[in-house]
Order: sequence, then C-alpha cells, then structure tokens
Amino acid sequence: MIFTSELPIRFAHCDPAGIVFYPRYFEMINGVVEDWCAQGLSASFHEMHMQRGIGLPTVHIETDFSKPAELGEILLAELSVVKLGGASVEIQILILGPQRDMRVKARLVLVMMDLKLRKAMAIPEILRVAMAKYSDVPAV
Amino acid sequence: MIFTSELPIRFAHCDPAGIVFYPRYFEMINGVVEDWCAQGLSASFHEMHMQRGIGLPTVHIETDFSKPAELGEILLAELSVVKLGGASVEIQILILGPQRDMRVKARLVLVMMDLKLRKAMAIPEILRVAMAKYSDVPAV
Amino acid sequence: MIFTSELPIRFAHCDPAGIVFYPRYFEMINGVVEDWCAQGLSASFHEMHMQRGIGLPTVHIETDFSKPAELGEILLAELSVVKLGGASVEIQILILGPQRDMRVKARLVLVMMDLKLRKAMAIPEILRVAMAKYSDVPAV
Amino acid sequence: MIFTSELPIRFAHCDPAGIVFYPRYFEMINGVVEDWCAQGLSASFHEMHMQRGIGLPTVHIETDFSKPAELGEILLAELSVVKLGGASVEIQILILGPQRDMRVKARLVLVMMDLKLRKAMAIPEILRVAMAKYSDVPAV
Repeated sequence: MIFTSELPIRFAHCDPAGIVFYPRYFEMINGVVEDWCAQGLSASFHEMHMQRGIGLPTVHIETDFSKPAELGEILLAELSVVKLGGASVEIQILILGPQRDMRVKARLVLVMMDLKLRKAMAIPEILRVAMAKYSDVPAV
Repeated sequence: MIFTSELPIRFAHCDPAGIVFYPRYFEMINGVVEDWCAQGLSASFHEMHMQRGIGLPTVHIETDFSKPAELGEILLAELSVVKLGGASVEIQILILGPQRDMRVKARLVLVMMDLKLRKAMAIPEILRVAMAKYSDVPAV
Repeated sequence: MIFTSELPIRFAHCDPAGIVFYPRYFEMINGVVEDWCAQGLSASFHEMHMQRGIGLPTVHIETDFSKPAELGEILLAELSVVKLGGASVEIQILILGPQRDMRVKARLVLVMMDLKLRKAMAIPEILRVAMAKYSDVPAV
Repeated sequence: MIFTSELPIRFAHCDPAGIVFYPRYFEMINGVVEDWCAQGLSASFHEMHMQRGIGLPTVHIETDFSKPAELGEILLAELSVVKLGGASVEIQILILGPQRDMRVKARLVLVMMDLKLRKAMAIPEILRVAMAKYSDVPAV
C-alpha cells in the first residue's frame, strides 16, 4: 500500500521566482507524515503527543529537488515504508506533478520517542503492524 | 452566501503552549481568501498574478483572538463581504470551533491592484458581481 | 523610551510579487515583542513560558500595510506602550523604511496569562514598572 | 575560512514539545546561505535575483538532526565549501550548541541558475574565487 495526499501549491509556498520556496516542502512533508499517522496508522499527532506522551520525530532526511513547482499546481505525495526497524522507520515520500513527473524525492528516518524520558523506545506493536502495510513497495 | 472552508489544526501551527501560534492564523486567513478567489470568484491567485498582472493585496486587517485552538481540532472559516467599494472590498472571516464557538474574528480590506503600475484599479465588473453574492450577510 | 529592532527583509519573507507576504510581518512583529520582553523588560519568553508558567498572548491586533517592502531592505521596528492596564498592555509597533517612511503600523493588545489556569492575571509589578518606561510616547 | 552566523531560537521556531520544529531549520539554513552570499561572497540574493537574473537554488539537501534545540538557546551555524564544481557548489552547514555540541548537520548542493532560461550556468569567476576561500576546511 501507498499513502497518498494532495498538495495544492499556495501563494504562501512561493518565493520571488514564483516557485515553491524549498523550506515550505518540509512543512508539506511533515503534513504528509502527520496525515499518514492519523489516517493510515490511526495514531494522530494529537493523540501521540498530548495523550500518550510519545512522538515520532525526524532524525534524518535527505531530499532531491528535481523540478520546481509553481503557484496553482496540485501535486501528489506518495508515502511508503522503506525499512522498519525496532525503534525507527525509514520512509520515502515522492512528490509528483500532474503528469507523475518527479518534483521532490525525500527519504526520512523517524524514531519512536518517549517524550518524557526523551529516549528512543520500541515502536508499539499495533503501530508496527499498521506501518508494515505500507512497506511492500519497492523503493525507487 | 457565505464562503466556508475547513481548517484542520496541524502540528506546524502550534507553539510550545500546544495552541495555534497567532501568526499562523494569517497564513490560514490568506489561504481562505485564496480559496474564495479560486472557488468562489473563479479568479485564482495564479491566474490573477501570473496571467492578468493583477492582485488583491491586504491593506488593513484587524483580528480578535477569542479562544485558543489546539492541535487536532478542525475549525471552520466563514467568509462574507462586508462592504464593496470601487477598488476595494472589505471582508469578514470568522474562525469557529466544532461547537460554532468563536476562535478568531478578522476584518480585512483588500485592494484591487495593477501589479505592473503598482496602483489601485477598479475591481473588474465580473469580479464585482461575483463578490456581491457574498455580501448580503449582516456583519457580526 | 522606544524599543527598536532591525528587520532585514529576507528571501523567506517574500512572495511571487517580490514583496513581503503579509503573514510574515506577524512573525516579525511577534519577534519584536519577544525581543522587547527579553531585552527591554528582562523577562524572556523562555523564562516566562518554561520557568514561570506565564505568558503574554496577543488577543487583538490591527494592522495597516501602508507600503510594500522588498527583498534586501532593512526596516526598523519601533515599539512603544500605548496603554497599560491591570492585566493587559496595549502596544504600538511601527515598521519604517530607510527614509522613516511608514510600511506597517500595528496596534496589539497583550494579556498577562497564567498558563496553567488559562486565566488572565495581574501583570507582576516588576514587569509593569519596566513596561511603563516605554509608555510616555504619544501614539501616532 | 568558515562563515559563521548566530541563530537565536525563537518562539516561532518551536513546536508543542518546546523544541525546534524541524522545517524551521531549513528556513534558518536558507538564511545562513543568504547571509553567506551577501556578506561572504558580496552577491546578495536581492542583487542576484532582481538585478542579474541569476539564482543559487538548492537541488539536494541531506540533514541529520542530532540533538533538539530549545526556546531561548543561541546556536551557531558554521558554513564551509565541500566541493566546488563548474555550475554547482556543495556546502556543509553545522549547527552547534553553546558547548559546540552538534545539533544539526546539513549538506547542500546549490546550482547556479540563469533564472530566465531556467538552465544551469557556469558559476561566474568572481563568485567562484570568493567561494573557494571557504573550501580549505576538511568536511566532518
């Protein structure tokens, strides 16, 4: 399975060259992860942070910006799991244009954290099972 | 008519107190105006800025923050036209909680601009007619 | 006394028209208030939020955007106290260009809050005395 | 030579966990590159974009977030050139805590672009010479 999400390019995303200012992509990418947790894994950031005292911070991210995106375009994000570790999960997010042309390709490593102890912890089994459903996709 | 738009409160909006950091509301408010133009007035920011060389910048805004909003809430924005001038339009945006409880109340004055001349210009008739449809709502 | 702060206009602030995207001004304005608290009032946001459990949220703001600002300009912010109440303080922030030409004029009402109780509280005497030093300036 | 820049952690940077929200680091990183161009290379973004029609967009970035940063901390960014190509330059930005403890380590590839043609171009000689001064630092 792949988790998908639409990304309409807004005025707020664009720079004086009329294209997306790259730091805004990371807000979009974080939003995709947030929606994946809530909708794909049934564990919203609100529930994790506010009720369970856990979090899934990004400890590594690498990103290729292949082609600029313009105001008014509607991009598509596709998230899949690349590697599922004990306390961490590696995901890939592709951001594609209307012709499925690559705009941004990102790899992220997320770590399951106990927010009080500020320590990594094993991914809870129910979350691991949910994550695994997004993992049978060969990474590009 | 009222133009409405859903505003899910994301992690990116929230501050160390766990509530929306107020400058983020202005990005949301700008997004509501952007969607109103595209969907309500059939004149997207992209088309206005990139193709027609016109814009609708905000020259005045006043805002009351009545009650904080938290991560995970889904707010509702309601936009209506308060006053329609020759080159300007005054709008009201209410941001409401799930119980229709007021969170943010904003009044904005937008001015129709010729972007090349950097001068105010009369609102084109077709836009004025479209805007007027949102104006028969008594302001709160 | 007036509290002043330099505001260099960065790429991150600017929109496809090459001028400051107005929601970015509110981040700058919040930064000016933050610096005023830390440097002018000797009560940093960090100390207030993290150690004392108090905060100074903005409950009302009204803003006039008189003239656009461009990438590379260095603006000057001038903060003064307009009215000092029991639990609230009204301030004015002027953002001026290199010729002291008005770009943005903002009025804010800040309220002293007990963050745990989520209730307004009297401004502590030491803060009130510090704030009062910025109040003998006639508002524009 | 190393180009250095102070990064005070502001309220606007922090998330509900009280630490820097990672997309904000990319705004800081872009600001460091912007300051390096203006102060280190004597070629401001304003001059490049608005007057010369050239730009230096980021096409690749990889980042490790080693340790969180908190509201009120003052971090130090250190920029050095790792590799100087014909049309591109690879830089490293380290973001360090007050004890020179690593917080963020980033590698970026920037490409010299003709903004009108939307094509890569050779880095102008005067810029190349200026960049080379920051390159004799062994990458970590």
